[in-house]
Amino acid sequence: MSADNFCPRFFHAVELVGRRWTGVILRSLLGGSARFHEIRESIPDISDRMLSERLRELEAEGIVTRSVIPETPVRVEYALTEKGRALETAIVALGKWAERWVPLEEPAAETTRP
Amino acid sequence: MSADNFCPRFFHAVELVGRRWTGVILRSLLGGSARFHEIRESIPDISDRMLSERLRELEAEGIVTRSVIPETPVRVEYALTEKGRALETAIVALGKWAERWVPLEEPAAETTRP
Repeated sequence: MSADNFCPRFFHAVELVGRRWTGVILRSLLGGSARFHEIRESIPDISDRMLSERLRELEAEGIVTRSVIPETPVRVEYALTEKGRALETAIVALGKWAERWVPLEEPAAETTRP
Repeated sequence: MSADNFCPRFFHAVELVGRRWTGVILRSLLGGSARFHEIRESIPDISDRMLSERLRELEAEGIVTRSVIPETPVRVEYALTEKGRALETAIVALGKWAERWVPLEEPAAETTRP
């Protein structure tokens, strides 16, 4: 092993997907496009502020698109881009790992539920 | 989508793997067991303190084992457990995604290199 094998792109990918709430937001959007409140309702304990911030970050990364649909009232939908959908394999693999290896009652989860 | 689909185990898995440096430490150990300085040298910019902390966390999660080999001087090796090796699919998938989708020059990387 040497630093030559270190990949800053992999580092960036892990940082991005691993940012608090980002993984679960992406997993939620893998089910299809959704409105803000639909995403929020699919994720217990996430605040509006945090969800907005994460969606903006994912938009800036080209992973999520925000579409304004001119209805009355205006409808805003979030969807994965091709880059976002390409994360499916990694996310599904991590989900399977979690099902197999992470115990149902997770002591560390206490810190995530204020 | 509803909160019933929310999986705290997936949430925990993402938080764990996504913690700063953890992904790259795991990726480094997928190459085989290694001594502390070998892991550190494979990851630019990581401090001894941070690497120790992450390895201790991974030990506590049952993902990494620390073996003391009674030589002179004593040799300490870190290796993935079965639970740790089971992360390979997810880590490889994320690595492939990064190769395909994360640009080589990554503006966000600035914040990770003090």
